[in-house]
Amino acid sequence: MRDSVIVNEVGPRDGLQSLGSVLSVADRIALIRALNDAGLRHIEAGSFVSPKAVPQMAGTDELFQQLPLTESVNYSALVPNLRGYENAKAAGAQAVNVVLSVTDTMNQKNIRMSLAETTAACAEIVKAAKADGIHAHAYLAVAFTCPFEGKVPERVVLALVEKMLKAGADKLIIADTIGAANPAEVRSLIAKVTALTSANKVSCHFHDTRGMGLANTLAALDGDIREFDSAIGGMGGCPFSPGASGNVATEDVVLMLDSMGLKTGIAPLDLVAAIDTASKLVNKQLGGRSYNWLTQQIAKQTGGEHVA
Amino acid sequence: MRDSVIVNEVGPRDGLQSLGSVLSVADRIALIRALNDAGLRHIEAGSFVSPKAVPQMAGTDELFQQLPLTESVNYSALVPNLRGYENAKAAGAQAVNVVLSVTDTMNQKNIRMSLAETTAACAEIVKAAKADGIHAHAYLAVAFTCPFEGKVPERVVLALVEKMLKAGADKLIIADTIGAANPAEVRSLIAKVTALTSANKVSCHFHDTRGMGLANTLAALDGDIREFDSAIGGMGGCPFSPGASGNVATEDVVLMLDSMGLKTGIAPLDLVAAIDTASKLVNKQLGGRSYNWLTQQIAKQTGGEHVA
Repeated sequence: MRDSVIVNEVGPRDGLQSLGSVLSVADRIALIRALNDAGLRHIEAGSFVSPKAVPQMAGTDELFQQLPLTESVNYSALVPNLRGYENAKAAGAQAVNVVLSVTDTMNQKNIRMSLAETTAACAEIVKAAKADGIHAHAYLAVAFTCPFEGKVPERVVLALVEKMLKAGADKLIIADTIGAANPAEVRSLIAKVTALTSANKVSCHFHDTRGMGLANTLAALDGDIREFDSAIGGMGGCPFSPGASGNVATEDVVLMLDSMGLKTGIAPLDLVAAIDTASKLVNKQLGGRSYNWLTQQIAKQTGGEHVA
Repeated sequence: MRDSVIVNEVGPRDGLQSLGSVLSVADRIALIRALNDAGLRHIEAGSFVSPKAVPQMAGTDELFQQLPLTESVNYSALVPNLRGYENAKAAGAQAVNVVLSVTDTMNQKNIRMSLAETTAACAEIVKAAKADGIHAHAYLAVAFTCPFEGKVPERVVLALVEKMLKAGADKLIIADTIGAANPAEVRSLIAKVTALTSANKVSCHFHDTRGMGLANTLAALDGDIREFDSAIGGMGGCPFSPGASGNVATEDVVLMLDSMGLKTGIAPLDLVAAIDTASKLVNKQLGGRSYNWLTQQIAKQTGGEHVA
């Protein structure tokens, strides 16, 4: 079993975009610095989307100019369309993430495009990025269940995976956008996706809506997946997906991987300060399932109560 | 894969005993009725322990006289010693659970007995129960990590499993009493335990302290385990184990099993009423990771907001 796992932090994008409030670019940078301090070296830093559609992501071009530790941190940017891609490229993004929702209705509701149109647009962006020497990752969103169309047949996802591979995507991110997948479904789909391409090119993105975030992570690990999206403190969701709640919490994922002897380069206890910073910035107490336990360990080390 | 799974509800014992407050026998019966109504057919109803040690369990003899649906529900009683066993037998218990903590320090702190003494006492109770035609289950408590001695070597647990099997135990319950196990440890230990006896005779008891309750459940399922302890709303803990928090929530376990196509005989949405009843009885909002999602589904069905 490969014993190194990449934990890709998506709080600054998937997390922040679901907030009612809007953080300043300075506050978003403060969040990213806290994540850097906690040892996170893969971060989806923002989205080059219309500020009308997602006001929380306004100023991402400015944000990319100010990113800290760009030599040692792998930052990526979500790009919803070719214009977003051009903006990301202009801002110096080294990696872009396209979003291909795998059902027609989800694309219509999300971005007013058909599945075929979105597929073509994503392929075009991936090709452009590769030509520009930029890493291109493709999200397969609502890959298990669509909030509008229900369970998604695996063959639908697999056909789109093949199209993204053909376009040149460096990575496929299988996303349970609304947190509806169960471990049996994850195992089945991951086995079929990794029959099409190396498991090294596949990542998983889980939400904890139904409590199965870590169980699904384990199922994907069993399928040889070694990269996962997560959000600090379990923040996140999707403003366009009814029923979606937070991403699986970074601290929960890291603690499980670390406990199992897998290497993430992140010390679980170091994440508490980042959770507390994120909580202050978004003015809401964040924290995954393991947060209380982690804070107790810090209190024991310091001989007192943890003060967030 | 065997597709039926027993979910053994331990809220009325492990859950209630960790409360600051003490419920009346009538309220404990009300909780058990709510669990019956939700479809639970395996329930650890209480503990025949000294009311001085655990005041929450006072009156368990009276409770056993009033248990509803005794023809169709499998009730069990925790018995800490031979006197407790005799009381359980006198109260008509059909199944008793002994608790064998697998480290010396845990036994000393918990019941002021050495590991050897506890092992002998548990074996004696198991033998007595079998002679009396009563089912005997043996908890192997702190089977992964002891709060006092740290990681427990597998050979220690396996030797005690063999002793309980030799005494005639009908079931071994591998208990992560303080919620410290990870899926890799669960897989390893379960594989070794099921090499000693049929997986049908093995159950698992997980706490969600570090967020891994469901991932550990999945790991045990992979090891062919088909019986799990859980507590409604995630209530529970252990008053004698520093750092232990709630049992893995019944609704989280049932929802995952049900989603995976495994049969529990319990409809996940039916558990919400039991959670709400439990919350009122203990005067604290309970609810596992999936509780919000489950209540949203009920609200959708009824066309309104869920009112607990």
